[in-house]
Amino acid sequence: MLTDVSPLPATLLDRFTAVRAATESLCAPLVTEDYVVSSMSDVSPTKWHLAHTSWFFETFLLAPHDPGYTPLNPRYAFLFNSYYVQAGERHCRAQRGLVTRPTVDEVYAYRAYINEAVQTLCDRIAGDVEHPAWQVVELGLHHEQQHQELLLTDIKHVFWTNPMRPSYRTDAIPQPPEVAQGWQSIAEGVYRIGHDGDGFAFDNEGPRHGVYLAGARIANRLVTNAEYAAFIADGGYRKTALWLSAGWAAVQSHHWQAPLYWELVHGSWHEYTVAGTAPIIPYAPVTHLSYYEADAYARWAGGRLPTEAEWEVVAADAPVTGRFVEHGVRHPFADARSGLQQLFGDTWQWTQSPYVGYPGFRTAPGAIGEYNGKWMSDQWVLRGASCATPESHARVTYRNFFPSDARWQFTGIRLAADA
Amino acid sequence: MLTDVSPLPATLLDRFTAVRAATESLCAPLVTEDYVVSSMSDVSPTKWHLAHTSWFFETFLLAPHDPGYTPLNPRYAFLFNSYYVQAGERHCRAQRGLVTRPTVDEVYAYRAYINEAVQTLCDRIAGDVEHPAWQVVELGLHHEQQHQELLLTDIKHVFWTNPMRPSYRTDAIPQPPEVAQGWQSIAEGVYRIGHDGDGFAFDNEGPRHGVYLAGARIANRLVTNAEYAAFIADGGYRKTALWLSAGWAAVQSHHWQAPLYWELVHGSWHEYTVAGTAPIIPYAPVTHLSYYEADAYARWAGGRLPTEAEWEVVAADAPVTGRFVEHGVRHPFADARSGLQQLFGDTWQWTQSPYVGYPGFRTAPGAIGEYNGKWMSDQWVLRGASCATPESHARVTYRNFFPSDARWQFTGIRLAADA
Amino acid sequence: MLTDVSPLPATLLDRFTAVRAATESLCAPLVTEDYVVSSMSDVSPTKWHLAHTSWFFETFLLAPHDPGYTPLNPRYAFLFNSYYVQAGERHCRAQRGLVTRPTVDEVYAYRAYINEAVQTLCDRIAGDVEHPAWQVVELGLHHEQQHQELLLTDIKHVFWTNPMRPSYRTDAIPQPPEVAQGWQSIAEGVYRIGHDGDGFAFDNEGPRHGVYLAGARIANRLVTNAEYAAFIADGGYRKTALWLSAGWAAVQSHHWQAPLYWELVHGSWHEYTVAGTAPIIPYAPVTHLSYYEADAYARWAGGRLPTEAEWEVVAADAPVTGRFVEHGVRHPFADARSGLQQLFGDTWQWTQSPYVGYPGFRTAPGAIGEYNGKWMSDQWVLRGASCATPESHARVTYRNFFPSDARWQFTGIRLAADA
Amino acid sequence: MLTDVSPLPATLLDRFTAVRAATESLCAPLVTEDYVVSSMSDVSPTKWHLAHTSWFFETFLLAPHDPGYTPLNPRYAFLFNSYYVQAGERHCRAQRGLVTRPTVDEVYAYRAYINEAVQTLCDRIAGDVEHPAWQVVELGLHHEQQHQELLLTDIKHVFWTNPMRPSYRTDAIPQPPEVAQGWQSIAEGVYRIGHDGDGFAFDNEGPRHGVYLAGARIANRLVTNAEYAAFIADGGYRKTALWLSAGWAAVQSHHWQAPLYWELVHGSWHEYTVAGTAPIIPYAPVTHLSYYEADAYARWAGGRLPTEAEWEVVAADAPVTGRFVEHGVRHPFADARSGLQQLFGDTWQWTQSPYVGYPGFRTAPGAIGEYNGKWMSDQWVLRGASCATPESHARVTYRNFFPSDARWQFTGIRLAADA
Repeated sequence: MLTDVSPLPATLLDRFTAVRAATESLCAPLVTEDYVVSSMSDVSPTKWHLAHTSWFFETFLLAPHDPGYTPLNPRYAFLFNSYYVQAGERHCRAQRGLVTRPTVDEVYAYRAYINEAVQTLCDRIAGDVEHPAWQVVELGLHHEQQHQELLLTDIKHVFWTNPMRPSYRTDAIPQPPEVAQGWQSIAEGVYRIGHDGDGFAFDNEGPRHGVYLAGARIANRLVTNAEYAAFIADGGYRKTALWLSAGWAAVQSHHWQAPLYWELVHGSWHEYTVAGTAPIIPYAPVTHLSYYEADAYARWAGGRLPTEAEWEVVAADAPVTGRFVEHGVRHPFADARSGLQQLFGDTWQWTQSPYVGYPGFRTAPGAIGEYNGKWMSDQWVLRGASCATPESHARVTYRNFFPSDARWQFTGIRLAADA
Repeated sequence: MLTDVSPLPATLLDRFTAVRAATESLCAPLVTEDYVVSSMSDVSPTKWHLAHTSWFFETFLLAPHDPGYTPLNPRYAFLFNSYYVQAGERHCRAQRGLVTRPTVDEVYAYRAYINEAVQTLCDRIAGDVEHPAWQVVELGLHHEQQHQELLLTDIKHVFWTNPMRPSYRTDAIPQPPEVAQGWQSIAEGVYRIGHDGDGFAFDNEGPRHGVYLAGARIANRLVTNAEYAAFIADGGYRKTALWLSAGWAAVQSHHWQAPLYWELVHGSWHEYTVAGTAPIIPYAPVTHLSYYEADAYARWAGGRLPTEAEWEVVAADAPVTGRFVEHGVRHPFADARSGLQQLFGDTWQWTQSPYVGYPGFRTAPGAIGEYNGKWMSDQWVLRGASCATPESHARVTYRNFFPSDARWQFTGIRLAADA
Repeated sequence: MLTDVSPLPATLLDRFTAVRAATESLCAPLVTEDYVVSSMSDVSPTKWHLAHTSWFFETFLLAPHDPGYTPLNPRYAFLFNSYYVQAGERHCRAQRGLVTRPTVDEVYAYRAYINEAVQTLCDRIAGDVEHPAWQVVELGLHHEQQHQELLLTDIKHVFWTNPMRPSYRTDAIPQPPEVAQGWQSIAEGVYRIGHDGDGFAFDNEGPRHGVYLAGARIANRLVTNAEYAAFIADGGYRKTALWLSAGWAAVQSHHWQAPLYWELVHGSWHEYTVAGTAPIIPYAPVTHLSYYEADAYARWAGGRLPTEAEWEVVAADAPVTGRFVEHGVRHPFADARSGLQQLFGDTWQWTQSPYVGYPGFRTAPGAIGEYNGKWMSDQWVLRGASCATPESHARVTYRNFFPSDARWQFTGIRLAADA
Repeated sequence: MLTDVSPLPATLLDRFTAVRAATESLCAPLVTEDYVVSSMSDVSPTKWHLAHTSWFFETFLLAPHDPGYTPLNPRYAFLFNSYYVQAGERHCRAQRGLVTRPTVDEVYAYRAYINEAVQTLCDRIAGDVEHPAWQVVELGLHHEQQHQELLLTDIKHVFWTNPMRPSYRTDAIPQPPEVAQGWQSIAEGVYRIGHDGDGFAFDNEGPRHGVYLAGARIANRLVTNAEYAAFIADGGYRKTALWLSAGWAAVQSHHWQAPLYWELVHGSWHEYTVAGTAPIIPYAPVTHLSYYEADAYARWAGGRLPTEAEWEVVAADAPVTGRFVEHGVRHPFADARSGLQQLFGDTWQWTQSPYVGYPGFRTAPGAIGEYNGKWMSDQWVLRGASCATPESHARVTYRNFFPSDARWQFTGIRLAADA
């Protein structure tokens, strides 16, 4: 699961405290009722995210490594397991949004209980930097950061489903300036991609390996709302020849005519955002697109989506910086004249690479090994990081993945073309 | 909609206050989270029941009869409409359990707002006993009492769906004594059934009309848990010949093996009740049965279900009294030696009469006329009243109705046989 | 199953020969391919009808009553069982249209084999008029006549499903003259309806019993295409208030805008008939309507559907005569000035009576007893007989039944009204 | 669509005649009824295959290139279009098995009509070897060969669905000898794969391009029935950890316990083959497996599936020869001691490569360009050729593709491992 990571225990415990607190701070705008429901099968209740991330530490850290640990409530192990089949029977995903008890207060008490137990365990093993528990703490934090992003995208969907359309935030989001579209070149050759084992990475980011590229060009920025609106205006959603067969079927059956959260108000496109519904911002990156839409747009624009190898090669020397606005970060906008922009912190970027294991990849044994390997079919790799990703969670080698029709994440488009 | 009712305004307003308060008192055991979810398509959230019963007064009483009335929130009219198509577009039933805002507190504020507006209107028209608004107040109260029963059966289902199995009540329910099964006879002849227009009744209870009966016998009490357990033990759920074709299909597809809420614990039947899971009480009436199960049981027992006419004829002179325990009523048990028992206050009783209009029945024009007539297909009449029915809502002429496979109501069996 | 019938064996065998031959003669217009498919779940392949009616004689007549009988192919018992659960496991209804072997020729050979075996058995018991086998022969013939009607309605649907729209017949159907609408009165009183046991009847036609009627008027003829087109033109399919709740849901989900088989050709209504597509005939009875449509039409027309008791009382003295054109009968049209018309031989007539057992009805024990009783839920009674009913199969007491949304039978409307 | 192919017209017409006749000869064992039905949504009726392959020549060859061409029946263009959206509206795939007319005889007449028209056109342009029509003839033949394989796998499924279990063939299939498992090595390096444009290839086989391989070993033969039975006996279908998440869901929902067509008879595994049901042949390649099963088996066996690049590199110098038994070929078995075996003519071999375009791939414009590109999502590449593939249709660069859960094709497993 983990590559050779050597955490400094003291720092790790500080990060544990910070990450756990960050999760809870994301819930500040919510009232009790908001924590309970699931608005579609992909969406989990906020309450469940809060509890499940605690369950992870209970199941994989405390139970195996703390002999004196007693669960706060033994039935939580059943209720808050997600997809770890080997960790025991799971509560049906479809019923997560029907569970009113434990209450929100009880879930917060569960979090506090876990926090204290983790702190006690960490204090006890503080002198043993080789203790295997440290790696589980590290993994648990990255797992929790993944759920921070899901918590945000899920509650956005819950609010949007409500005909009253409540807002998660009330402040306005600053508008990005226009950036001219340019290209970054990749020369033909054999490159090495994947994580090299220095610092934390998920198992699916390695092994580092060679890949032959024929050469390509990658866009210096993301596709904008204005550009995507032009695709719509040109009849993009009605031109069969632009679409994959399964994509065309999705357009027909879901009646897609625009990105998720877009709607026409008096004839002009508006977008439901975490700060409410407003006219689309022309130069902001378009987001909440399925793979099918990203692929069709790229074909319409005369380009294609990048492969994940192309993306990683071109991004390899770029700093992991960006806007990450959903976590309160307010970096200034990049200089509009500079080179490669918006790699991180705006939208995840669909690649044309199906999500499979790298050469030499093996799933780790045991339940924790279910983490990434078992999803390696019928999904696509997305690269970068979105405005809802915790900044410290972003990495050049990060491989996010979703199925072709997923739209509720902050997903967008960076174009590519043959050299 | 209403037959000629002459409410005394003063009394009616007292009843309004009492019924509205009774609805809220049913929510005393709930925490905020419990109000929000819907555990299946038949079940509405508690919050929705609280709001919808207020919406009824807003839409059919205040809007047409109070020129100065201003809605607290104009979007509530959309959110809390149920099936009144003519009263405007409705929020999709399947999404009722996804609405976190308005909050529970806001819904209570909506109730208070409506209560005050109704009170003001009633004060204004107090001198005009012929004012058509009085009939709407009366109808609204009976509508609210119907939702009191649904609120209870729905929250029971929500709690049961939760693997934690919380309880609505904590006190024990007294056990009824054994009562010997006996029969009440009906002689051949033409009888008159249906409401005669004296006092309130729903439109579907009239017109009063003649019906020819060939003669029959009706059981003096309901079928008990012990009797139904004998049917199960005899393989009742596996004997095709006992079942209607659609009933057998339901048994197969839903894997029914016992009433809803029954489960085997260490080999003996237990029942989930509003006071938690406990061994079935042998002499208590069996409940939470579909029509199919009631029909199959009756065939197995060598009898049949009564027609609604038979039920009404035999019950015509009985007092409307019973246990109604879910509303805090604690009537003593009837004398076990006495005659016809358990007509009201234990379980609704499936009849073999499909739910259609009485001879001469016409649906009233307008949205309020959607109330009963449009459901007159593919359902069965149930007679009596259950432990969850408000006592003052029970009537000898009352026609409840549900489809063949409904099990989440307090439904049971009274046997009949040909004379 | 049967009331006391005393068939004359010799005559019965003649009828056996005639009915079996009539089934096959209905297939004269078909080619081999037409026999194989099922165009929807209600429709069985022609081949299956031919085989299943033979299976009936094999299973209920030859197997129990002919000790020397050997099945032609023992696996046919599995393939051609329909819904007789107690007669053994059944081939899934949904897969009937996937069975290419036995071939059509083999199925005809099966029919010949059964015919010969039945003939031999009948010859053997010819002297024993009390032999129970005679009743099974009689029942089997009526069963086969039911399938003659289904065979016709099913192949009509198969042909219509085909974009090539082949025709079953090529000759034109004579147009009926206009008949003025009039009413037949029924006085208040207790009447006796149901079969009296004289001659053959299905079990569900008895017992004969009393029924109280408040008095009513029944239309002297069926609703015509022209009248129904006026309902459509008046927006009947868009007026919620005309429809039952489940009917309105059916209109929405199936996008019903006219009877099945109607289509607009250059703005005027055409109808696909067994003789191909042609403009609707104004004075012909409208047909291929669901119960929901019949009920909505009646409400729109200011009337209602008759009860089955009203229908039977008014029809009691009428001769069983009519057009029955699909069986080649060419009776002259009734005198347009005469009284009650079109009771038999045009369309089945929806009544407002749900299909349940008459007072005192009991299902016969054993598999043959599954025949009618187990369908007594969620269906409506239809009275009369259609153009596809064999004339000798029609009876005043006949109770046909279909669910609310069935449209592929020749179903129509006779209006009624309160007295 | 096509790479630069220079067919010799005379030879091409000979091949046209041969391929068209081969399709019809595959139907020799069928009776008329067998041509009509579709046993599941993936399966098309034989009649449809016969007609659709003719429609291809009509639509893409005759209509654009023969000004005097008159369709035999203009409605066939609608009925026999498959997925060419741009070629006009299509008849719903789900209804293909419901069309009884045109009859089988009429479809054969349609084939003869097309054959004659193609012959006439070819004669007319015989002198013009650059005429673009030649490429369409070539493509149409390969298209027809693809349908030959589908015709066989589809009719196998139709027969298997029938409880009578008819057989397509009656002769026994010779048993292969045991072959020891060995490995073929691939050295690390950059290789070139894909079609080089010499001779016919589908568009998805190019462009030829470089690919970096880290080195690997590929099994010299396919996994056998005996080996797969050991996987089953070891509980392979019950061990969650062996399966992809979606694969495990498929196992649960479809109740998979063995390959399609396997069944236990008196406790030993039997297989339904085109020659009927018989005990599995231990050394024969296992077939009719989904990707999920192939992937789980490989994990269980300690290996993995090859990538398509590995497969093509190792197979590059192998002759395209094999058993291809379903087309009557009876090549002797390969010498059991020799090297790489069973590349072609036994089963298609699942690779771990998702089906996407090669670097530089572009979909050709126009309807014929829908051929391969629009399927490039959510499928896997299979390499080699099966016993049902026409031998002349097999190529080293051929890229077959099916979704993860497809089992009705002759699909099997060749293992690979890291170097």
